[in-house]
Amino acid sequence: MSTIFTKIINGEIPSYTIAEDENYIAFLDAMPLVKGHTLVVPKKEVDLIFDLESEEYKNLWGFAQKVAKKIKNSVPCVRVGVAVVGLEVPHAHIHLIPLQKMEDMNFRNERLKLTNEEYTEIQNSIINS
Amino acid sequence: MSTIFTKIINGEIPSYTIAEDENYIAFLDAMPLVKGHTLVVPKKEVDLIFDLESEEYKNLWGFAQKVAKKIKNSVPCVRVGVAVVGLEVPHAHIHLIPLQKMEDMNFRNERLKLTNEEYTEIQNSIINS
Repeated sequence: MSTIFTKIINGEIPSYTIAEDENYIAFLDAMPLVKGHTLVVPKKEVDLIFDLESEEYKNLWGFAQKVAKKIKNSVPCVRVGVAVVGLEVPHAHIHLIPLQKMEDMNFRNERLKLTNEEYTEIQNSIINS
Repeated sequence: MSTIFTKIINGEIPSYTIAEDENYIAFLDAMPLVKGHTLVVPKKEVDLIFDLESEEYKNLWGFAQKVAKKIKNSVPCVRVGVAVVGLEVPHAHIHLIPLQKMEDMNFRNERLKLTNEEYTEIQNSIINS
């Protein structure tokens, strides 16, 4: 069965896409810790990020770097934090989280509930930065 | 003033080194969340990881991939988590954290106090894996 991320990649589930190329995609997290919380995902359905082939793995991080710079330029934050956990969805993904403080990256925090308008505003702000 | 990581790189402060090359170093975190918690650091003193030049940045992640595989092979864990926060030391660093559960990556958790013997045992186990 496809992972939820593969369904997003295939357009079966809508998402607020930030960037996409042949191999990678970035979209807003549907359960964000903070505004601008973004996921970067390889289109290949691999569970563990470190199991990606070396070049594919490094290029995924290169793609994430470009996205992180756009987030930093558009979302008020001290810096963009990174997390790879992956205990919930067995499809490698990088969390990019605009941080004001350490606590913003606590995955036990309650998730934000944003309106479609808020998501679209954040999406456009990051894309156009 | 040099960061604490530059002092470790220069050998002014001792550390339990896991791997090192011309540009990067990995050593056991002195305040580990779990056994095997490792830091991967570029020798160049840069605050924000995303400010590293593209190739240097991607090779840092490549270096981290090799270290993560050694950790996965030697420290009992479900997977190796990744975190970049950097609000405390202004020298880019990647946390590699052997995870059993999501909560293992909560930076508010109390840190382990290990003996020199325990550190050495973990260090040798990762290096020799």
